[in-house]
Amino acid sequence: MTTTLDPDDTVAVLAHDRFPDRAKTAVGVIRYADYDVTAVIDRAHAGESVADHLPDAPDAPIVGSMADAPDVDALLIGIAPIGGGFDDSWRPDVRAAIEAGCDVVGGLHYFLADDDEFAALAADHGVDLVDVRRPPEDLTVSEGRAGDVDSEVILTVGTDCSTGKMTTTLELVAAARERGIDAGFVPTGQTGIMIAGWGIPVDRVISDFAAGAVERMILNAAPDHDVLFVEGQGTIVHPAYSGVTCSLLHGAIPDSLVLTHSAGRETIHGYEEFAIQPIGTYVDLYEDLAAPVASAEVAAGALDTRSVDGDDAARDAVESYADAVGAPATDPIRFDADEILDGLL
Amino acid sequence: MTTTLDPDDTVAVLAHDRFPDRAKTAVGVIRYADYDVTAVIDRAHAGESVADHLPDAPDAPIVGSMADAPDVDALLIGIAPIGGGFDDSWRPDVRAAIEAGCDVVGGLHYFLADDDEFAALAADHGVDLVDVRRPPEDLTVSEGRAGDVDSEVILTVGTDCSTGKMTTTLELVAAARERGIDAGFVPTGQTGIMIAGWGIPVDRVISDFAAGAVERMILNAAPDHDVLFVEGQGTIVHPAYSGVTCSLLHGAIPDSLVLTHSAGRETIHGYEEFAIQPIGTYVDLYEDLAAPVASAEVAAGALDTRSVDGDDAARDAVESYADAVGAPATDPIRFDADEILDGLL
Repeated sequence: MTTTLDPDDTVAVLAHDRFPDRAKTAVGVIRYADYDVTAVIDRAHAGESVADHLPDAPDAPIVGSMADAPDVDALLIGIAPIGGGFDDSWRPDVRAAIEAGCDVVGGLHYFLADDDEFAALAADHGVDLVDVRRPPEDLTVSEGRAGDVDSEVILTVGTDCSTGKMTTTLELVAAARERGIDAGFVPTGQTGIMIAGWGIPVDRVISDFAAGAVERMILNAAPDHDVLFVEGQGTIVHPAYSGVTCSLLHGAIPDSLVLTHSAGRETIHGYEEFAIQPIGTYVDLYEDLAAPVASAEVAAGALDTRSVDGDDAARDAVESYADAVGAPATDPIRFDADEILDGLL
Repeated sequence: MTTTLDPDDTVAVLAHDRFPDRAKTAVGVIRYADYDVTAVIDRAHAGESVADHLPDAPDAPIVGSMADAPDVDALLIGIAPIGGGFDDSWRPDVRAAIEAGCDVVGGLHYFLADDDEFAALAADHGVDLVDVRRPPEDLTVSEGRAGDVDSEVILTVGTDCSTGKMTTTLELVAAARERGIDAGFVPTGQTGIMIAGWGIPVDRVISDFAAGAVERMILNAAPDHDVLFVEGQGTIVHPAYSGVTCSLLHGAIPDSLVLTHSAGRETIHGYEEFAIQPIGTYVDLYEDLAAPVASAEVAAGALDTRSVDGDDAARDAVESYADAVGAPATDPIRFDADEILDGLL
């Protein structure tokens, strides 16, 4: 699947009530996409700016509604509630975007193009409704062939959702490219796809075909790159999403794993009765589970230290984390992904 | 999802070129469904009978085509090739069934009701096309609540596909009921659904919702039963299907696991470059992977000894297997599922 977004497009990103901490997609495209995010739409933060929240990201104004946004080429839905539903309070913004001639790009389980009102309106105004979470229709089962590619395949895994798997993957791609390495990014979720402009949303694929979808992306991308960094999803012991993670592990047949974690998190996000395990447990689980299909080792760690005050304390947290992982670690946002690249190549 | 099949229906089962060893669905419904299978359709075995192949199952003639079958209420597609496609050589049989006024029940990824020819013909003849692999449209993510039910939940797992997970589950249900225990069967695959008349095909569900589908079935079935035996799928280290297995493990939040294996199998069926691991590896993998969500132990083993000649050798194989599993084991078809029930209740 490819999106309609070009590098010279301007984009408004809808993130009502959730920017920035619960707006992964919005923050991801602001940080990493080639196109320009010229406004964030969040009624809870109208009048502020992106820089007020993310000092190191490209700045843009935050407005209360699409009607208040500057002219743009497209509206992106930059938030994804648990379950992936569409909140009807966003409807006026999507309607306004279509009426203003903007394409609308969504990453929800709820498809914009299947919404009767939006579909009719889009047809009237000649704009595209792009649902990046709609998988290709010709997927099938994995043949277990991803291990045959010549490229090095590195998969990001985690201790929970929202531990920085996509961010870590993108930072590793950037760090590798800075060294002159021909590195490719394999997007597996809606934000990654919105950033890269291609990819298959593995969580939306029929579960029998999930590993097959990963395999297809690896086989397609490998001829163009020496190293592939594959965006991971969820965690292997998530009460709801572990199947997606498992399909990624066995579908990608990776050479190495990068274990991501969010400093200080003690329970599974949104499932607080389930505890985060000791870090070593994840290293063992991922390696042992991979072993019969892929001899992949956790060769690096990435720690999200957003919750840690000060670089010194964050550096301490990273060092403890590296000890627990048994491999070099960093915070790829606060510090530098380059620090863990040697162990992966 | 429920099927249209009633206990007093008569049914023909299509199993071209694959009966019985590669016709899991056909054999399953012959052995376990309440309705009567009055013919098997297999052009490679026309003129023979079910009893020639399965001496302990209810007998029926094997015919070469639907045209040669006795009058029945329904035609079941009793085979499912890798990938779940529809083989066009079966088309005349489905056509003949519809023209004879039979419902047609399929368990393929390819939906009969979406086939233009079959849909039009079925409308003309007033028959139903039932695709048991079509999941409900209102599924969502698991909330991690399956562990809250009062029923004991027992999940069957395996070292590969086709190791007897459904058979073992059904034999355990029957053995428990014989003891007067109120046991329920939770079907998770097309054959189980065809047998039980309800269930969700977990392998066909959007991967984000797979654990949620399992949770929904557990929550629905638990109030009616003291013990639930949940049909497992695949294996946790399958190159293509492990995500489905993982979703079952964390969606069901089981109290106990039954590990199934096929005696003598050394590689993953259809993926021969991937070796079956030592049995103890599976025990550790399933228990360790379950632990953060469910404290489930492998409390019994079930060994398919079809490939072992003679009951004495089979008994030896079962004993070795029990040692490897570290729990009581049996072959629930050759011997008796009752032998492993104590450890599970």
